[in-house]
Amino acid sequence: MNDIISEIEDIFHSQSLAIYGVSRKGGLGNILLQGFIDQEFPNLFIINPRITEPDMEILGVPVFPDLYSVGKPIDLAICSTHPKYVKDIIIECGKYGVKAVVIFSAGFGEKGEQGKKAEQELLEIAQKYNMRLVGPNCMGFYCPETGLSFFPALPTESGSLGFISQSGSIANILAFSSMLKGIRFSKSISYGNAVDLGFNDFLEYLGEDPKTNIIACYMEGIDDGRRFIKLVKNIKKPIIIWKAGATGAGSKAAHSHTGSLSGNDKLWNNIFEQYGVNRVYNLEEMVSMIQAFINPMPVDGRRVAIISGPGGPAVSSADAVEMNNLKLADLTDESKSKLREYIPEFGSSMSNPIDLSLQATFDPILEKNAYEIVGNDPNVDMMLIWLTMLTPRYKDLLKLQDEISKPISIVSGIDVNVSADSFSKKVKRSFIHIRAKKVPDIIKNLNQKGISIHPNEHLAAKALYNIYRFYNSNSN
Amino acid sequence: MNDIISEIEDIFHSQSLAIYGVSRKGGLGNILLQGFIDQEFPNLFIINPRITEPDMEILGVPVFPDLYSVGKPIDLAICSTHPKYVKDIIIECGKYGVKAVVIFSAGFGEKGEQGKKAEQELLEIAQKYNMRLVGPNCMGFYCPETGLSFFPALPTESGSLGFISQSGSIANILAFSSMLKGIRFSKSISYGNAVDLGFNDFLEYLGEDPKTNIIACYMEGIDDGRRFIKLVKNIKKPIIIWKAGATGAGSKAAHSHTGSLSGNDKLWNNIFEQYGVNRVYNLEEMVSMIQAFINPMPVDGRRVAIISGPGGPAVSSADAVEMNNLKLADLTDESKSKLREYIPEFGSSMSNPIDLSLQATFDPILEKNAYEIVGNDPNVDMMLIWLTMLTPRYKDLLKLQDEISKPISIVSGIDVNVSADSFSKKVKRSFIHIRAKKVPDIIKNLNQKGISIHPNEHLAAKALYNIYRFYNSNSN
Repeated sequence: MNDIISEIEDIFHSQSLAIYGVSRKGGLGNILLQGFIDQEFPNLFIINPRITEPDMEILGVPVFPDLYSVGKPIDLAICSTHPKYVKDIIIECGKYGVKAVVIFSAGFGEKGEQGKKAEQELLEIAQKYNMRLVGPNCMGFYCPETGLSFFPALPTESGSLGFISQSGSIANILAFSSMLKGIRFSKSISYGNAVDLGFNDFLEYLGEDPKTNIIACYMEGIDDGRRFIKLVKNIKKPIIIWKAGATGAGSKAAHSHTGSLSGNDKLWNNIFEQYGVNRVYNLEEMVSMIQAFINPMPVDGRRVAIISGPGGPAVSSADAVEMNNLKLADLTDESKSKLREYIPEFGSSMSNPIDLSLQATFDPILEKNAYEIVGNDPNVDMMLIWLTMLTPRYKDLLKLQDEISKPISIVSGIDVNVSADSFSKKVKRSFIHIRAKKVPDIIKNLNQKGISIHPNEHLAAKALYNIYRFYNSNSN
Repeated sequence: MNDIISEIEDIFHSQSLAIYGVSRKGGLGNILLQGFIDQEFPNLFIINPRITEPDMEILGVPVFPDLYSVGKPIDLAICSTHPKYVKDIIIECGKYGVKAVVIFSAGFGEKGEQGKKAEQELLEIAQKYNMRLVGPNCMGFYCPETGLSFFPALPTESGSLGFISQSGSIANILAFSSMLKGIRFSKSISYGNAVDLGFNDFLEYLGEDPKTNIIACYMEGIDDGRRFIKLVKNIKKPIIIWKAGATGAGSKAAHSHTGSLSGNDKLWNNIFEQYGVNRVYNLEEMVSMIQAFINPMPVDGRRVAIISGPGGPAVSSADAVEMNNLKLADLTDESKSKLREYIPEFGSSMSNPIDLSLQATFDPILEKNAYEIVGNDPNVDMMLIWLTMLTPRYKDLLKLQDEISKPISIVSGIDVNVSADSFSKKVKRSFIHIRAKKVPDIIKNLNQKGISIHPNEHLAAKALYNIYRFYNSNSN
């Protein structure tokens, strides 16, 4: 473990936190603090020089006018004040022996030359005191294991996803949309302008972190392309990157957002392609791809079997499979004749894509049997299953997966988190449904067995292709 | 109005229905019948020769052994029996003077040469009696205005969307996913193997139907390409087509699904491009594009303003705008200086994409003011707004739209139908939220003012581009 890696590890294991920018009237600082309270972070102290009364508390956390008044060692500080106060806070933290400061405050490098100078000055001060900086213009860390947080009400349960984001709000939105999909984090890191610790440092850290099995990132640009290439080449965990600033308009926007240079997009694509990085283009796609890589089943062939109740989506899924560089599996004659025993003769299709017909809506055994026959077919490497909506039959797939261990993508035509809760009673009568509040745990269980759920067949097929590539490209 | 059009109009205004295939033990026929009951269709009669007891009822509908026993005129019949009974039913209907028969039963043309012969024979019988056929292998019609239906629990409220689908299940799934998005139908038509009435007939009909303002379609192939081209050239309503069978694998699947020949996909794309047809590739995209065309605001420029709370999605939205052949609007100096009064100095951006910063999460006035300033900017033709989730602030947009009437696309990072219902109480405290059950009506109101909601920025931008193209291509 090199110095930076062990320093980041120390930050994640901070035992005491001083937070600047919390006020009596509330605001962003108070929101950040509530996040730590919700995670039961052990030793919290508010620093606010304007509050001088003794024994003051905000949100139940003691307030001190400065660090010296705390009188206890502080591992980590968070600075959420107006930018004009940041320099003095950094000096105070440095002198007091704080190990690292997360600068939430914006108004630095992303605002042009003067801001860049100001943040360089902060770096010089920090380096003088051997203190690390995160930000400015960032949300900092969420680590349920050790109680770090950047927003209230995030899950306290840990998971295997490590996330790195140049945009604080994306780290935040991903945490919430992941909650609905049962995805849990080892660490989520929002690093903003990266005056000190930056993308590559955190990527290297998550690459070595034994708690992290899958790495996802939002980035607009990075400083050291060579180091990035070396890292993605060496890290054997799946990496998913949402790289924004792909176009002229996007690059310009990225520059005013985080001061980033987006670089040549073709070059980025070549790098991603060469080193098996899974590029995504929006949040929806990222959540889809994360699910696929929570616990991907090893696979060495690209022959996909499609099972669908509705016939139209079966055709469209066959398109999606071919568009994503995969092949339709030829079922064995044995499988076909077994299917013939269960699938209705009419309105259905026994050859891949397997169309169970509308009958599947009313006959649960039909789907179960089809899953088993097709899943066990030696000519089938992976499965794509198109459902109108998620039903309790997911249990059949969980059981089957214990036998077959093949990558499985599910499409849920009606958003999986909606379930039948949003329908009228009349509609509920017509569908076998599950309650919306159970959906996140169900998806979590499915993901942990290598089964992911997608909003359309194109993302479902892309997920299967990416898993295939992960296990079969030279770089892995 | 030509003959076919007026015949289809007559079918939609049927006053009496005979349904074959309803049984005491239940099944698909009973499901179809329940759909008509839910829509309060006036005169329903079950025909089942095996039930000979007098005064029998199933689901409250009287059962007769044959049409003659009914003794009243029958406008429409639905045949949902085993295929081997269909021929005799068609003969019975023809002799009795039924005007049209929907053949739900599958097991015809899609099963090969013998099936094709069998359905040709049905057509000959029907023609002899001057009776129209729909199907086989289809779901038939849903028309809330006149009470036709193909599934229980569909909305009884009418809307402006006319839908044509070769796949019955897609007609059905679209009806349910549309329900969650507040989309309402004038007519939905599932025509299956199209032995008699087919895609072009229904397209022509919806093109002339005064109740239909927007036409969406799922198709795998059509027989008469020239007629199709003539129709899309002449119809001035927006047309959205999900054309499956785009690849070799998809074409093959389409052939076994509905017996269709998918044709050369490049040729299809050229036709769609030339005549301004909006092609989509899956259900999610179709629902997105339908929303955009419920009531599209006229526009003659392609300059888009992006407003986002989160900064990362603002950058990604700028990419999406450029990728979809649109331009970022240059705000006037007046707008920029007005924005400066409201938007926080730090962590935000006043130039397009406008990044309101995290502050927007806590300060509702900020968003409202930004919408007004940017919406009224003469350099802005259209708006793309990226939200973490739908909040009650949608009302500000509804009001603004009365002044500006510009196309507006909203992205909801967290699925719009999920709302805060699915979050824990803790999270609800952190977001200004709306109840999930109110979402469909809210979306309906937004759509009716030219504001559509999308699951990601790429679909949001594509929707804006398609609206621009609709009003500015030569064919329209």
